[in-house]
Amino acid sequence: MKFIIQRNHLVDSVQDVMKAVSSRTTIPILTGIKIVASEEGLTFTGSDSDISIESFIPKEEAGDELVEIKETGGIVLNAKFFGEIVKKLPMDTVEFEVVNHRQTIIKSGKAEFNLNGLDPDEYPHLPQIAEDKTFTIATDLLKSLIRQTVFAVSTSETRPILTGVNWQIENGLLVCTGTDSHRLARRSVPITLDDSENVQAVIPGKSLLELSKILDDSNDLVEIVITENQILFKSKHLLFFSRLLEGNYPDTSRLIPQESKTDITLHVKDFLHSIDRASLLARGERNNVVKLATLEGNSVEISSTTPEIGNVVEQVQCESITGEELKISFSAKYMMDALKALEDGDIVISFTGAMRPFIIRSVNDESILQLILPVRTF
Amino acid sequence: MKFIIQRNHLVDSVQDVMKAVSSRTTIPILTGIKIVASEEGLTFTGSDSDISIESFIPKEEAGDELVEIKETGGIVLNAKFFGEIVKKLPMDTVEFEVVNHRQTIIKSGKAEFNLNGLDPDEYPHLPQIAEDKTFTIATDLLKSLIRQTVFAVSTSETRPILTGVNWQIENGLLVCTGTDSHRLARRSVPITLDDSENVQAVIPGKSLLELSKILDDSNDLVEIVITENQILFKSKHLLFFSRLLEGNYPDTSRLIPQESKTDITLHVKDFLHSIDRASLLARGERNNVVKLATLEGNSVEISSTTPEIGNVVEQVQCESITGEELKISFSAKYMMDALKALEDGDIVISFTGAMRPFIIRSVNDESILQLILPVRTF
Repeated sequence: MKFIIQRNHLVDSVQDVMKAVSSRTTIPILTGIKIVASEEGLTFTGSDSDISIESFIPKEEAGDELVEIKETGGIVLNAKFFGEIVKKLPMDTVEFEVVNHRQTIIKSGKAEFNLNGLDPDEYPHLPQIAEDKTFTIATDLLKSLIRQTVFAVSTSETRPILTGVNWQIENGLLVCTGTDSHRLARRSVPITLDDSENVQAVIPGKSLLELSKILDDSNDLVEIVITENQILFKSKHLLFFSRLLEGNYPDTSRLIPQESKTDITLHVKDFLHSIDRASLLARGERNNVVKLATLEGNSVEISSTTPEIGNVVEQVQCESITGEELKISFSAKYMMDALKALEDGDIVISFTGAMRPFIIRSVNDESILQLILPVRTF
Repeated sequence: MKFIIQRNHLVDSVQDVMKAVSSRTTIPILTGIKIVASEEGLTFTGSDSDISIESFIPKEEAGDELVEIKETGGIVLNAKFFGEIVKKLPMDTVEFEVVNHRQTIIKSGKAEFNLNGLDPDEYPHLPQIAEDKTFTIATDLLKSLIRQTVFAVSTSETRPILTGVNWQIENGLLVCTGTDSHRLARRSVPITLDDSENVQAVIPGKSLLELSKILDDSNDLVEIVITENQILFKSKHLLFFSRLLEGNYPDTSRLIPQESKTDITLHVKDFLHSIDRASLLARGERNNVVKLATLEGNSVEISSTTPEIGNVVEQVQCESITGEELKISFSAKYMMDALKALEDGDIVISFTGAMRPFIIRSVNDESILQLILPVRTF
């Protein structure tokens, strides 16, 4: 194997596939990155067996030569060392050659690295995915819907299924739901699926976070394929595979109250900043809990106390308050997470009493719903 | 005590004095910031008893009213909570009032914080310093000389005196020396001291690092006062006190070789980048060690090896090499630290054999000297 490549392309591809490589793997070859040179170009692969990422650099793009393949072949190189080396190569051009016994020589300017490679045939194969059920989402929309749901998944392994985001496609609507059983985030987006069949998959939150880091902010389409136990995201020159979580995702629709007793309409940023300030002194025995009480004259009072230290109280002006008076306590962190997931503008918070879950929506956007369970303090 | 203040002034002063407050103090009142309102303005004090910082906000500056003092007095507030609160206050104006039993009310917009304060009379007094031996250094020069010497101090408490930088003033020259006994950094700068007497002090490295963070990058003069066990840095509206280290600083002048057997002149950046690359594979049994060997034709070879992984070798072109051939090994980290402390341009490295300390100087600047002890490997 021998090729000459522009350093910036090498750095980008290696950094992308590195995101799948874990230093804590029990399979030694997965500490490496697989590099394959074919007549068409270069393929880089990284994997921790849950997530696998493949990045392709074509020989040519838009008339520019990106890689000059002198000899086809493959090698696996230690990801940690290789990743650091490519970032620090001195010149814009890098020469790469595998000689006898998988010795890999990387030359750039007057620097010459000599790395011991591993056999590429021992590297696990990527999942084979039949591409029959595919649909597409614009990259920036995909990143939004990840951001708006993934923060709500559980970080505890006591109910592993809740560490994933549930993707449910029914009648041309993709509904993404994340919940840790104390709060829930839901975002829906219309899609076109070739097949009229319904699809459901629970994607590990960790996979979605890594995917989000790799995707750019364009509105190019990402092609998505869901199979029984894998999901594949295909963007330009990039394949991102994740295993799916096994098990039944709970029916979350019955959690969501269909009616409300108190509705508060207010500006999301004003409310967020007020909760943020109250959280500074929300360090009592019930950590991070703030109180909300409706007041006369269309305003709410946000307050919290840390014993010994002090307390904070603030009035927030609302657009409107309808229905019953209310005093309720909730986690400041959950509330801030939920508010940050909503677009700027006015929101409606719908309560059905101090002990029941309440929901938060944008006034102008029905596609996002946030739900939080209150805490008993009043 | 009661005053009204612009939030940005409050934030700056609190952030400055916070740098002296440690969360691990055994003296409860030192977890707080002392605030004193006088007819002249506001004084903020933070201290961990090693370092004390005082920031003053005058009532007026350049015709602008910064603080409106309604009632003089003092209070001590928990630094962690108070520091977070001031950053998140909603409006540009903050009203501050201490009512009965040291309850402190901080109002901004519709937010009202109520903090339990401590008695300011219980706060330790700052060191009383007789200002007889004072000299001045421009702020940016002071920051340079800290940066160029403090990295070399010891981080181990086995010889506490080496955790400080030695400041020696003799015949109008301030010489700053840091060493951990494996490497040494020295920077000298001419100063004008009113008194013709010589002065010597060992300043804790940690104090100098904190000072450096607070100082801006202006060339305003900083006034410096050294006493038997304290040093005081005075810049505009800011007092920075540090205790000095007790004990005799070793005589480092005899460590510095007066002659050399091999002199290498080369460009600092080229050499630094080459050492940086070699350090990527310098993970053998002697961690972080790279080798340097002189070659024919005015170049040196930098190399290193990590067993199992691979090796790197690179030639660096020199301006000149004079004297004996040389093969030597040294810590890549020490070399990079030393090179980063030197200004851009050409440097001379003077060796007196593979087992003796060597020195690094800028070709055009005699005021900085770096010394490194080699490692035995060749």
